[in-house]
Amino acid sequence: MTSSSSEPKSRLGEFALIKKLFAPLSKGARGAFDLSDDAAALHLAEDRELVVTVDTVIEGVHFLKDDPADLIARKALRVNLSDLAAKGAAPHGYLLALSVSPWVGDAWLERFAAGLSDDQGRFDVHLLGGDTTAGPGPLTISITALGSVPRHRMIRRAGAVPGDVVYVSGTIGDAGAGLEILRGAGASLSDAQKTQLIARYRLPEPRVSLGAKLQGFASASIDVSDGLIADLAHIAEVSGVAIEIDAARIPLSAAYRALGRREIDGIVRAATSGDDYEIAFTAPLSAHAAVEAAAEEVGLAIARIGDVKAGQGVVLLHNGEPVPVERAGYTHF
Amino acid sequence: MTSSSSEPKSRLGEFALIKKLFAPLSKGARGAFDLSDDAAALHLAEDRELVVTVDTVIEGVHFLKDDPADLIARKALRVNLSDLAAKGAAPHGYLLALSVSPWVGDAWLERFAAGLSDDQGRFDVHLLGGDTTAGPGPLTISITALGSVPRHRMIRRAGAVPGDVVYVSGTIGDAGAGLEILRGAGASLSDAQKTQLIARYRLPEPRVSLGAKLQGFASASIDVSDGLIADLAHIAEVSGVAIEIDAARIPLSAAYRALGRREIDGIVRAATSGDDYEIAFTAPLSAHAAVEAAAEEVGLAIARIGDVKAGQGVVLLHNGEPVPVERAGYTHF
Repeated sequence: MTSSSSEPKSRLGEFALIKKLFAPLSKGARGAFDLSDDAAALHLAEDRELVVTVDTVIEGVHFLKDDPADLIARKALRVNLSDLAAKGAAPHGYLLALSVSPWVGDAWLERFAAGLSDDQGRFDVHLLGGDTTAGPGPLTISITALGSVPRHRMIRRAGAVPGDVVYVSGTIGDAGAGLEILRGAGASLSDAQKTQLIARYRLPEPRVSLGAKLQGFASASIDVSDGLIADLAHIAEVSGVAIEIDAARIPLSAAYRALGRREIDGIVRAATSGDDYEIAFTAPLSAHAAVEAAAEEVGLAIARIGDVKAGQGVVLLHNGEPVPVERAGYTHF
Repeated sequence: MTSSSSEPKSRLGEFALIKKLFAPLSKGARGAFDLSDDAAALHLAEDRELVVTVDTVIEGVHFLKDDPADLIARKALRVNLSDLAAKGAAPHGYLLALSVSPWVGDAWLERFAAGLSDDQGRFDVHLLGGDTTAGPGPLTISITALGSVPRHRMIRRAGAVPGDVVYVSGTIGDAGAGLEILRGAGASLSDAQKTQLIARYRLPEPRVSLGAKLQGFASASIDVSDGLIADLAHIAEVSGVAIEIDAARIPLSAAYRALGRREIDGIVRAATSGDDYEIAFTAPLSAHAAVEAAAEEVGLAIARIGDVKAGQGVVLLHNGEPVPVERAGYTHF
């Protein structure tokens, strides 16, 4: 763990605090050396390979300054665990690159570390190292997550073939609706429904348990962060296939439906709003029973939403007719 | 490789450009999947372990907006390669988390990628993955570097024992002097000397070749980023030893000495200015011939600058007397 700052004098107390707060997060990880070294060491068995991914979240872009610090921390970690899950990887640990802003104080940092601690226990991962910097800009959190899969068995975006079936876990559109509610929408909802949707925006549930099962059947996989259609388009592109989705099969929560979005417009909105952190994957038809068994074991609904065909791109079908989708998801398109 | 932005529409061209510029940097790395997936995969032999480190550089803190983009890129990569070298690790590749500012344009990005490409060839590493975000703040570059060592053989900061000898590679103080020259100092120097010192600030030379040899003899090691005395203090602290340094033995370049800094004040300044990216290490006295042989093979001077003793802290000796050091290095103290 290292640190640097544009204000070496005034930040001393803060860096000491970070050391005090973060070193305990490395307990139990032998190669983290209590964060007292320049680097971490990690050994994997010969038949495993490392899976590594990085995601950055920025104040004002991915979260707001006033969001609870523990939730910011947990979401930053969870979006990375979600990537590992979609690759079929077992999570091991993470590195934290934290660029603190002038407004970040001791209480905020304590709550941030407490959030990480909570989720470390929940997902059995440890902080392996990091870098703390202080700058004049927005708070920026970059997490590198490390996991592993059996050798050559990372589930890729490439791998879907015509004849495969398309699945998605959980429900789609809740996080996007949660963000809308934070901005004032949702007058027709109960408080419990609002809370549920907002929670899905603020604190995604990475499908780590499902990820561990994907090795058994998935031919291609991605976590739904940009939007269901946009992310399936990534699979279609690198797999060199077309994907047809049946709009009526896209799984919507009761709370989402209570927004009055049962019609096709509401379904399109769900499928393009992003931040779901569900897993969308393809599998051969012969694996359908295995997919159903996995869903039961993990305790998570898995919906069969479409089919892989020869061709390219994603087509959303409503009553058998293609529905035009103007914006498939967040950026990219 | 993923991307997100607060301005999804206006950044589309930019993200496409990044994809175009960065995907070629992954060529030759099998597990990078042309940056077309959520994660990278990396396999190590059973007798190796992963060494992983992250460092962030921020506009206005670690570099200036007007610095050449290729040098910013190369320095961001090199400070991480320097960490790997100090751990005795062979570098494999890196992940890039790039948070671009509104002022960053196409030409800047092209030059940034060209800088990475240059150094990838020089140090035999590849881009394995990353995340690109666009935010309102300063340009922020966070690089996670991945390397490997023989199992259980990462050279730690802990490991120095009384009786060991203290060494440092290259020369100390040049980068700090280079920064001063950029700020107007150094009227007494020739243009060539100014250029030399500024280059050491702008483009450190990670001691990767030396790092590969350290396995043979080093008991503890660190790269000099905060300042020689501050970094040796890290070794002293986690090793539970004292370190005595002979000021007269700290290696200074001819250009540094030409600044009129041959006296003890100039030496203290060199030993506390940081950004040297040399390797400071300890080794048993019995390894001295091996250290000298490594220096010759690598073509890099290695100076014997002090001794490890029982006790704690770092003492700088001048004519046998301790010299008070007010500020050991950049932050930390």
